[in-house]
Amino acid sequence: MMQRALGEPVRAGVPEHGRMPRYYLAKTQLLELLDELGEGAVIPTERDLAERYGVARETLRLALRELLLEGRLRRQGRGTVVAGPKLVQPLSLASYTEGVRRQGLTPGRRLIGLDRFAASPGVAEELAIEVGDGVWHMERVLLADEERVGLESTYVPVARLPRLAEDFDPEGSFYAYAREVGGIASGGGEERIETVLATPREALLVGTPPALPMLLLHRRSWDHAQVPFERVRTLYRGDRFSFTTALSP
Amino acid sequence: MMQRALGEPVRAGVPEHGRMPRYYLAKTQLLELLDELGEGAVIPTERDLAERYGVARETLRLALRELLLEGRLRRQGRGTVVAGPKLVQPLSLASYTEGVRRQGLTPGRRLIGLDRFAASPGVAEELAIEVGDGVWHMERVLLADEERVGLESTYVPVARLPRLAEDFDPEGSFYAYAREVGGIASGGGEERIETVLATPREALLVGTPPALPMLLLHRRSWDHAQVPFERVRTLYRGDRFSFTTALSP
Repeated sequence: MMQRALGEPVRAGVPEHGRMPRYYLAKTQLLELLDELGEGAVIPTERDLAERYGVARETLRLALRELLLEGRLRRQGRGTVVAGPKLVQPLSLASYTEGVRRQGLTPGRRLIGLDRFAASPGVAEELAIEVGDGVWHMERVLLADEERVGLESTYVPVARLPRLAEDFDPEGSFYAYAREVGGIASGGGEERIETVLATPREALLVGTPPALPMLLLHRRSWDHAQVPFERVRTLYRGDRFSFTTALSP
Repeated sequence: MMQRALGEPVRAGVPEHGRMPRYYLAKTQLLELLDELGEGAVIPTERDLAERYGVARETLRLALRELLLEGRLRRQGRGTVVAGPKLVQPLSLASYTEGVRRQGLTPGRRLIGLDRFAASPGVAEELAIEVGDGVWHMERVLLADEERVGLESTYVPVARLPRLAEDFDPEGSFYAYAREVGGIASGGGEERIETVLATPREALLVGTPPALPMLLLHRRSWDHAQVPFERVRTLYRGDRFSFTTALSP
């Protein structure tokens, strides 16, 4: 078992009363092993590990699955390797590109689709437009060093950026385009963050196992006149991202 | 299947290419049913639902499990009922009590333990004290209308609040105590949020299924002289909470 100083700010796993589940004991042993092996190392086979810890293959798989979901392990080719730490992103407007660069990675975006549709009552209310007005829906996969790490959906009134489909480079920054072409200067926004499970479609697009816990960010931004101009929901791999925010006194 | 207007800001689940998993089809059908039944309604038995949707019990269970993990369903006594929406909390200092009250619920806290330990190098650095200095570790379960919804661990130097174990009411507000007894006025802080799986001990204390996705908030706060005075990690049920933050221009 893992030895840690009493009361340290770590998350204790073992209930004071009641038994420790077998898979969790295997997981703490595996965590020790990952620390020894270090980032990028290939872990031994399931068979070897089950034998080493004296547990059934099924039990070992449960432990490995949790470590994969939590981002401590990742699949690489046909093997499984020790993962690095999660990326840390600031919770702030237009942060993706900047946040990823700050960690020494190359940000990127790949277009999935750009469609125009008529605003439903819900969308109309969120964007302060009339029901039936045209709205763009742009969907892009987020990349970090060519690895797929998230999925972003942007909703913006067509009247604000009528030529989006013709002259926006979907690999570029939407905010830069909105500023330069639409004259839209951001005047703030609000963001809500929650944890959700990836749907099969999302898992396929982002390349994650289905039902991986994801961080879903809902954002609404308004311009300098306090009129909403976008509604964005971004799904980030829960095993790859954490978010920071500064707290005011 | 669920019908939604094209391009609405909802999360599409069905891959454009490839087959829709059976359990996911059952899940979309169940979501329709939950909408019809409404919050608090008891859902039919597994056997009935499997028959109704023409799937194996095992497949149906996968769908139900995701809906439980996502907080669309919750266990109540021996049945399963349609859950209400997630609680929305502001990401800000001393927010728990206020945020829960704002949603019309009664906040509460129950003490799990209050221990004194010697600071390890990591803790000493975070709290700007010497290695070996005394540190309090206080662990409390967070309640909303008597329901257990989270688990909070607070680390604070003993020198700041020497009488914490004797005269702090663990059901009260730590910030009010720190201000009144220790003369500590908050001068801001930083917070980091990520999604993790509940450990068996955490699941037991919070009363959740093991491996439920949780939101883990790490917080460090400093006083008006910019000296750190606390390190907190709070685990919130991922099926019960979402967090909001305002974005500055």
